[in-house]
Amino acid sequence: MLSTGDVLTAPRIVLGIDPGTNLLGYGIIKVTSGKVELLGLGVVRLGKITDAGEKLHHIYEKIGGLIDGFEATEVAIEAPFFGKNVQSMLKLGRAQGVAIAAAISRKLPVFEYVPRKIKQSICGNGNASKEQVLAMLQMQFHFETQPETMDASDGLAAALCHVYQFQPRAFGSNSTAVGTSSRNSSAKSKSGWAQFVKENPDRLK
Amino acid sequence: MLSTGDVLTAPRIVLGIDPGTNLLGYGIIKVTSGKVELLGLGVVRLGKITDAGEKLHHIYEKIGGLIDGFEATEVAIEAPFFGKNVQSMLKLGRAQGVAIAAAISRKLPVFEYVPRKIKQSICGNGNASKEQVLAMLQMQFHFETQPETMDASDGLAAALCHVYQFQPRAFGSNSTAVGTSSRNSSAKSKSGWAQFVKENPDRLK
Repeated sequence: MLSTGDVLTAPRIVLGIDPGTNLLGYGIIKVTSGKVELLGLGVVRLGKITDAGEKLHHIYEKIGGLIDGFEATEVAIEAPFFGKNVQSMLKLGRAQGVAIAAAISRKLPVFEYVPRKIKQSICGNGNASKEQVLAMLQMQFHFETQPETMDASDGLAAALCHVYQFQPRAFGSNSTAVGTSSRNSSAKSKSGWAQFVKENPDRLK
Repeated sequence: MLSTGDVLTAPRIVLGIDPGTNLLGYGIIKVTSGKVELLGLGVVRLGKITDAGEKLHHIYEKIGGLIDGFEATEVAIEAPFFGKNVQSMLKLGRAQGVAIAAAISRKLPVFEYVPRKIKQSICGNGNASKEQVLAMLQMQFHFETQPETMDASDGLAAALCHVYQFQPRAFGSNSTAVGTSSRNSSAKSKSGWAQFVKENPDRLK
């Protein structure tokens, strides 16, 4: 029986992905009653797949497999807006589109965040380096640094950024997420780094 | 009973799409024993959908609905390689990626053709105008010209171009189509612009 005042929160499982055309980094985190736990961290390497269609096929299958395998309830994507040239942007857009569709096909809400927003959210600084972001993620989740985790960290960072935007609450109460939602606000900058500094002054060098 | 020498061909139903970010034109044709028949021609208007995620969601649902509704066996996409700027190309890539994923999710082979290849295939001239392509399509399929058909014609043209590449044969014998296959053959001239310059020196200012 629930006591008065108890909030029944179903666990949220967030799949964060960084869908590039050569590497697809991902992280999966579980949020239960305010506790955030790392379920998975990895990379899908696409560089050796030369056929563009096969690559998209592979992305769709992999993302779908991760969603189904971990029973993800929502998806967060790192979505850079600028690239070197129009052709590489078209390819990147396709990779993102296929990844987004893998979530849409399973009726999951998809959220996208620009890199700056992700860094801001995790390190309190939109210009933080990849190493700084990784260090914050390691402090939170205690995983070892390996080449694999370096590449996967952007996906995990997107997932954590998303959790910071939507702090644990009864799942299902978020009615704003339809398809992909751009959330670049930062009016509420939930600031991982600032809070970390505040709570751990002794950890600073 | 089949006589000796008869070839049993299951009908092919080709969905051709021109997945833009504001308009999505489509045509559906049926190929049975060498006869090509128009099943559908239309446009999905996306211009009024301002949320990018909702737009992708809509594309996914619409393409999926067309595939299921017409029992399409293969999908052909018009895939331009050049755009105005990186951001519009990213959006276009996403729209294409979502459309491609709608086919992938249903295990259908996807083929893509550049506009030049489509025009070449239908009009015998890679520089044919939109009106010339439309006139050829009307001669083949006898539909009336309406604003709707003008916008839909690129999708239909992609479908017909695809049928011309793979002339009617026993369906299932095409083992090359996995995911999306780039078929720009024509002496492997991927190069829209370089070839255009070469073939049309007089068109340069």
